[in-house]
Amino acid sequence: MSKQVKFATIIISSFLVLGACNAANVSVEKQVVNAKTNTSSQIIEPHKNLNQQPIPPIIERVGEHEVNVEMTAQITDIEISKDNMYKAWTFNGEAPGPVIVVKEGDTINFTLKNMDPAIPHSMDFHAVHAAPSKDFADIMPNESGTFTYPANNPGVFMYHCGTKPVLAHIANGMHGTIIVKPKNGYPTDGEVDREFVIVQNEWYKYNDLEDFTNGVPSNVVFSAKALKEGDVNTNGTVGALVDTPLLAKVGDKVRIYVNNVGPNEVSSFHVVGTVFDNVYIDGNPFNLMKGLQTVMLPASGGAVVEFTVTKEGSYPIVTHQFNHATKGAVGTIKVTKDGLDDGSQAMSH
Amino acid sequence: MSKQVKFATIIISSFLVLGACNAANVSVEKQVVNAKTNTSSQIIEPHKNLNQQPIPPIIERVGEHEVNVEMTAQITDIEISKDNMYKAWTFNGEAPGPVIVVKEGDTINFTLKNMDPAIPHSMDFHAVHAAPSKDFADIMPNESGTFTYPANNPGVFMYHCGTKPVLAHIANGMHGTIIVKPKNGYPTDGEVDREFVIVQNEWYKYNDLEDFTNGVPSNVVFSAKALKEGDVNTNGTVGALVDTPLLAKVGDKVRIYVNNVGPNEVSSFHVVGTVFDNVYIDGNPFNLMKGLQTVMLPASGGAVVEFTVTKEGSYPIVTHQFNHATKGAVGTIKVTKDGLDDGSQAMSH
Amino acid sequence: MSKQVKFATIIISSFLVLGACNAANVSVEKQVVNAKTNTSSQIIEPHKNLNQQPIPPIIERVGEHEVNVEMTAQITDIEISKDNMYKAWTFNGEAPGPVIVVKEGDTINFTLKNMDPAIPHSMDFHAVHAAPSKDFADIMPNESGTFTYPANNPGVFMYHCGTKPVLAHIANGMHGTIIVKPKNGYPTDGEVDREFVIVQNEWYKYNDLEDFTNGVPSNVVFSAKALKEGDVNTNGTVGALVDTPLLAKVGDKVRIYVNNVGPNEVSSFHVVGTVFDNVYIDGNPFNLMKGLQTVMLPASGGAVVEFTVTKEGSYPIVTHQFNHATKGAVGTIKVTKDGLDDGSQAMSH
Repeated sequence: MSKQVKFATIIISSFLVLGACNAANVSVEKQVVNAKTNTSSQIIEPHKNLNQQPIPPIIERVGEHEVNVEMTAQITDIEISKDNMYKAWTFNGEAPGPVIVVKEGDTINFTLKNMDPAIPHSMDFHAVHAAPSKDFADIMPNESGTFTYPANNPGVFMYHCGTKPVLAHIANGMHGTIIVKPKNGYPTDGEVDREFVIVQNEWYKYNDLEDFTNGVPSNVVFSAKALKEGDVNTNGTVGALVDTPLLAKVGDKVRIYVNNVGPNEVSSFHVVGTVFDNVYIDGNPFNLMKGLQTVMLPASGGAVVEFTVTKEGSYPIVTHQFNHATKGAVGTIKVTKDGLDDGSQAMSH
Repeated sequence: MSKQVKFATIIISSFLVLGACNAANVSVEKQVVNAKTNTSSQIIEPHKNLNQQPIPPIIERVGEHEVNVEMTAQITDIEISKDNMYKAWTFNGEAPGPVIVVKEGDTINFTLKNMDPAIPHSMDFHAVHAAPSKDFADIMPNESGTFTYPANNPGVFMYHCGTKPVLAHIANGMHGTIIVKPKNGYPTDGEVDREFVIVQNEWYKYNDLEDFTNGVPSNVVFSAKALKEGDVNTNGTVGALVDTPLLAKVGDKVRIYVNNVGPNEVSSFHVVGTVFDNVYIDGNPFNLMKGLQTVMLPASGGAVVEFTVTKEGSYPIVTHQFNHATKGAVGTIKVTKDGLDDGSQAMSH
Repeated sequence: MSKQVKFATIIISSFLVLGACNAANVSVEKQVVNAKTNTSSQIIEPHKNLNQQPIPPIIERVGEHEVNVEMTAQITDIEISKDNMYKAWTFNGEAPGPVIVVKEGDTINFTLKNMDPAIPHSMDFHAVHAAPSKDFADIMPNESGTFTYPANNPGVFMYHCGTKPVLAHIANGMHGTIIVKPKNGYPTDGEVDREFVIVQNEWYKYNDLEDFTNGVPSNVVFSAKALKEGDVNTNGTVGALVDTPLLAKVGDKVRIYVNNVGPNEVSSFHVVGTVFDNVYIDGNPFNLMKGLQTVMLPASGGAVVEFTVTKEGSYPIVTHQFNHATKGAVGTIKVTKDGLDDGSQAMSH
């Protein structure tokens, strides 16, 4: 990556047009409902009154081609939209979980600590080669396990809990993104001024496998995630306000590492007011496309997209499947003369 | 574009298998229902009894690299399937709106006249670089606004109204296609005998944001659109009969500029009886794929597809998401010895 | 194809998480229900008590560039998940139908024998050039028809019945895959150790056009299909157990020809524990992508994916649209030291 690249730590907005929880001044426990119906009864007994403080992941380079990564499985309340809390099953108290960044060719020594008192959890990194039945094995409650994986493919990869039923573990919040930086970089690294990570995911009725399987999402949201190691978010909130924009400077070439973690829906990722100069499908430098208005992301799919913001103003980021944008999958890049927030109101969709 | 290219002005069929309005001899006003339920009550008060005559767009080249485009936002009844009228929010009285064609490198001086007495509208061209908060700004009822944009990327791009709630403006009909012809053409321009533009969109319950957001479409339709400037359709009807086919000659290489304007669904665009020799994803000459049976279009995505029709007969055009084809997204290319209509019955799906 | 390639004849698992038929010891006729509701009343009268023995297709090379293919349209009970039978409209008593393999440049002399006593059927090969209105014409009950097609494009193509209503014919089971091997092979043929064919399709309420058009699938399943001519499955069952895995040897490069025949849904095809070294979109050697975690398949779309299994263990195969995986679209590759089944329990999702 080129030196001039700056990093974002801001949370992107996700707002809910339909059915946001209207009750004010209710307790957090009472807020654990979703947009469709009060389903707090679906909270499993040992999770009731449990809200585990987010534990930052440990990402530590221990050799030129070796990284130690330690993550937790934990139960933490997440605000999936304004005043709409979800007692999420998480990695490290975030949903999506923290972005993990390694380099092509790295060996990852990975430890998962399962702080969930009730349910086994596990890790499935799409970025690595592994025998899933052994290397992505369940870690029992209050136990931990360590695994070693090679990360030989550059790209933007999903990770998620692979414990059965997988759909429930993903839909309840156990998903995130691991970026494997290409050994020789991207051909366009030198042109990029600013980088962000955006993860799309859906929420359904609380811990409701029937709704996960046959329903439509109540919320579809974007989360902006920190790119730099150690620069992780320290609270689990992903549902910040639409007027907390990403920032860029007039003329910047912006790169977004985007990942659609589903669990069910595909994404049509688009930034209003620009055209993607370069798109690397799944983040592999080989898979270059040019001049796309929108990139099609399968469930779990990723991309690196690069574009130029030529004028001052607000640029909405959406999935152009507009029923999903209406359910929250909207963000904003605010472009100013100097790349600093000028305090003006962002445009929302 | 090569000289031998001919242009189509015909409207492609869209038929409704399920739930078409059966009432005959009802007034146009009464026909403004959709396939699911009478929702004419959702017509906002100032739009009742309003059916504005389609105003053709003005597309005028004023310099080697400069084009003036003038369009209207207007309320016009559209036949979305046989006898099924929709009081659409439109550009220029069509839904999808007229195809706009410019050249890579053009500056577009764009004027939007808002003839809607009640609601602001705006324009978001996916083809251009712009600061959305300013350059795609709302135009108030009975006002007009002019903006200037560079169109520096070749391709097949969606345009749509970007006024909030965006989903409502798109789903009620404010969408269309702008084609930016590549500066140096497509490598295959010399092989192409015939060009068409096809736009896919969905319809839902009339002006029903809940159905737009959580429902399934009542109709999914294809519209054939004129490619040549000035050759726009003069009425707003898009739901012509399935037996009004596009025409081609045996042996022709046919090019279709296809655009899926959603608002919500992706498309699996396919022509029966042939294989796409060339596909340019989003219409950019760089993004060449060969031998595709079907091209995946995200919501808002476009493509240039080229194929050969080797024998006389009827070739259905579909989205291979067959629930959507069943709801109307079907067209036909009739191939004859001389490319003229021989009066035979077209095949439908 | 390289000589060391081995062929699979095993059926991949498809299991049903939700709503499987619980009744034990019911007659086959009574089992013809789907997961949602007993809809056996939708069996058309002449199909009642009809369960035609699967007739293997005839695939016979009669010249260097000429192949005779004979298939049947027939009504056969298919187990779409454990104890969940479906009186399918089939090609050759299988659903999906048998895999047909030809070579780029072949002429196919195709005969369809319609054994259905009640309904016309037809064949639409996506692999060929044809005039659909003539060359994909309906064959009446108890009749047969012969057609000749050129197969000039390499790839992994869907075939299906094209008789109206097309959605009903596909959704009731008349779909399958035809592979056209590239004239000069794939660039990676020499690296591949093992090949499989996997077809994804959805099932809905029995013969219910309303559910086909507006419902969500009750089952989404993978079928493993034989690649080699003459090596077709001899019974129509596709819903085998999840613990009947495909087999591979540690270190193998595995190739899967994958095809999503819908009828309605797109697919996000993924193999857990690996990354696709090479993906040829729609199976055309020109359309190479590298390092994909997941390949996006439109409805009817295909791909050739190649990946390495580096360690002993079980590797789940899924569509990462996990609502669909939950409805059955899961399989397993079991990797052992010698590529033989070691009797260990496979991992399921």
